[in-house]
Amino acid sequence: MENRQVYMDHGATTPIRAEVLEAMLPYLKEKYGNPSSIHSQGREVRQAMDAARETVAVALGAEPGEIFFTSGGTESNNIALRGTAAIKKKCHLITSGIEHHAVLDVCKDLSEKGHSATFLPVDSNALIDLKELEKALTPETALISIMMGNNEVGTIQPAREIGALARERGILFHTDAVQTVGQIPVNVRDLQVDFLSLSAHKFNGPKGIGALYVRKGVPLSPLYRGGSQERKLRPGTENVAGIIGLARALELAVQELPEKTVRLQGLRDRLINGLLAMEEVTLNGHPQMRLPGNVNVSFKYIEGESLLLSLDLQGVAASSGSACTSGSLDPSHVLIAMGLDHEAAHGSLRLTLGRGNDSADVDYVLKLLPPIVERLRNMSALYKKKG
Amino acid sequence: MENRQVYMDHGATTPIRAEVLEAMLPYLKEKYGNPSSIHSQGREVRQAMDAARETVAVALGAEPGEIFFTSGGTESNNIALRGTAAIKKKCHLITSGIEHHAVLDVCKDLSEKGHSATFLPVDSNALIDLKELEKALTPETALISIMMGNNEVGTIQPAREIGALARERGILFHTDAVQTVGQIPVNVRDLQVDFLSLSAHKFNGPKGIGALYVRKGVPLSPLYRGGSQERKLRPGTENVAGIIGLARALELAVQELPEKTVRLQGLRDRLINGLLAMEEVTLNGHPQMRLPGNVNVSFKYIEGESLLLSLDLQGVAASSGSACTSGSLDPSHVLIAMGLDHEAAHGSLRLTLGRGNDSADVDYVLKLLPPIVERLRNMSALYKKKG
Repeated sequence: MENRQVYMDHGATTPIRAEVLEAMLPYLKEKYGNPSSIHSQGREVRQAMDAARETVAVALGAEPGEIFFTSGGTESNNIALRGTAAIKKKCHLITSGIEHHAVLDVCKDLSEKGHSATFLPVDSNALIDLKELEKALTPETALISIMMGNNEVGTIQPAREIGALARERGILFHTDAVQTVGQIPVNVRDLQVDFLSLSAHKFNGPKGIGALYVRKGVPLSPLYRGGSQERKLRPGTENVAGIIGLARALELAVQELPEKTVRLQGLRDRLINGLLAMEEVTLNGHPQMRLPGNVNVSFKYIEGESLLLSLDLQGVAASSGSACTSGSLDPSHVLIAMGLDHEAAHGSLRLTLGRGNDSADVDYVLKLLPPIVERLRNMSALYKKKG
Repeated sequence: MENRQVYMDHGATTPIRAEVLEAMLPYLKEKYGNPSSIHSQGREVRQAMDAARETVAVALGAEPGEIFFTSGGTESNNIALRGTAAIKKKCHLITSGIEHHAVLDVCKDLSEKGHSATFLPVDSNALIDLKELEKALTPETALISIMMGNNEVGTIQPAREIGALARERGILFHTDAVQTVGQIPVNVRDLQVDFLSLSAHKFNGPKGIGALYVRKGVPLSPLYRGGSQERKLRPGTENVAGIIGLARALELAVQELPEKTVRLQGLRDRLINGLLAMEEVTLNGHPQMRLPGNVNVSFKYIEGESLLLSLDLQGVAASSGSACTSGSLDPSHVLIAMGLDHEAAHGSLRLTLGRGNDSADVDYVLKLLPPIVERLRNMSALYKKKG
């Protein structure tokens, strides 16, 4: 078998595509003015930034005044949640047990600071139950924060239904759409969201830049103070090249969405079927309501991390869960919330497909895995005991 | 006179130098791994980021573990101040009336949230008085935050003396060194600072990336929650290309510092002398203790903004104060704190020199200004009345 380099960790980050870097380069070279400067170099950059904001707004079905650039998904999530809590003296938040730590840990932190939070359970497919959500509502509930697509297991929540439920009751709705923007259609009006977080490096844009959609008229307290950038919600000289790159990446991703979705779903399902054909492998996450590029399976009797390292030696970049918590010895909080036991949670492997992947990549991984899995299982005490 | 494009707004932002962009490009192209990923693409990027942290540490006389990357100066200032206040139930901060809004407005905000702050006055040269600082100390004083060099008028504060005073009394010392890092020598041990903020785009690095020095052992509460990046002080996928760019820009700036300082001081003093030779022009800021590239003067009887626009039409990019508050009709809080009346404050012009400027740029501006000033004064009711 030929040696290939296969990157299947698009859930962690994606390469910047050539058109995006090309759009950014002038702002890393000659167009260096500070967009707050009133001279022509500044004004020219300001105009480009305004155009980028418009592009992002159009891509999401929003208005330009509703888009705020941030340094990424984590900052967007923190601003939405903390900025809402800061306005209320005491508020109740509803979230889920499978959120990214940038939502989960903010809710925990707010709970320790005079607010309260309910962490909804999920079923074995990582779906929340709308009835549970309704039951959790209290008169103090100010905000519901449920992620649109899960970063680890790919399950897509019924965000529109949550949005409708929240809007009807006058409760704010935030969704962490970091894994869905650029992967599936995301329209803020359809979703009836009040806040939506996104991050450029998840859809072939640069790292260190994201955005927060804030519905017109919804109050939000800034967390930082400083200059008047981003209408004071996010002060500090703007990451201009990042903003231009984010907008271009989003524009391209949205244009190519229908075709990309079908293509990735095809690759994904072939990969899933191939993996499930192996012995004692189970799929994690919803079989249908699933991000087009997400594959997450558990291999019994082995550690996901050993699998990763073996794959890495053969040129395949994968992950065992979220990159943001790698290095931690705890099993994935998402898999545990779904009811997996510690062994199955430790045996998980995430393969996330993206633009660069093709059919040969899937073949390569499917050929590569069985002997690796067999070798690792043969080293496993548990497996021998079973045998 | 030939037409030139002269950028004299380096206090607002600077162009990325070619060597810096060159260092960044691999991380905008093929080296796109997430530094938290454990596969080889991730590890390679992690190593580059570690090396960048080491470079920054060496440049500042710090240890790598004391350097935290942020999205810029504003975020660094907010983390240092709010992160300290968050640990104490009720703390007293001492700052000055001429800080950047990213310090000034944070102190005001903290004052409204159960803490208290003293805003030290400055003299007509924008210098604080160490005796006033001592007088302001209370048993609750937890933090002194005094900027190292002023962004508008260029005055350099006696940071070492402040550091010694603070250390002696067991009070934390933060300095906003955004305008000094890469412009004059900055060594965290000499300064005896506990926190120091810097921003790459002020020293020919990219926008959207900065750092906060936090002295080893000094506790600081993170403002955001999320992944474990930057040892949880600043979660979120790292702006890798930005980090690499910051480190390279700082390394180069520090290498070239002695030569650059002398060169810029020469240009600056010639520009100042030329301007002061004009009628009714006064220098703002300290004549000697001054950033090597900073020129700030007030022209009597005219508006700085009209001057700016006229200069812009002739290819000269300048500013009337801080870019972060441009668009505001209020006069500069720095100039007002120095005792200037509103008229003189509105008549200010800031010309900030940098790497790209040469002697011909200074000549050009000195030739260009007198007829512009004359024309604007001839349109001024105040000037006619005086005449």
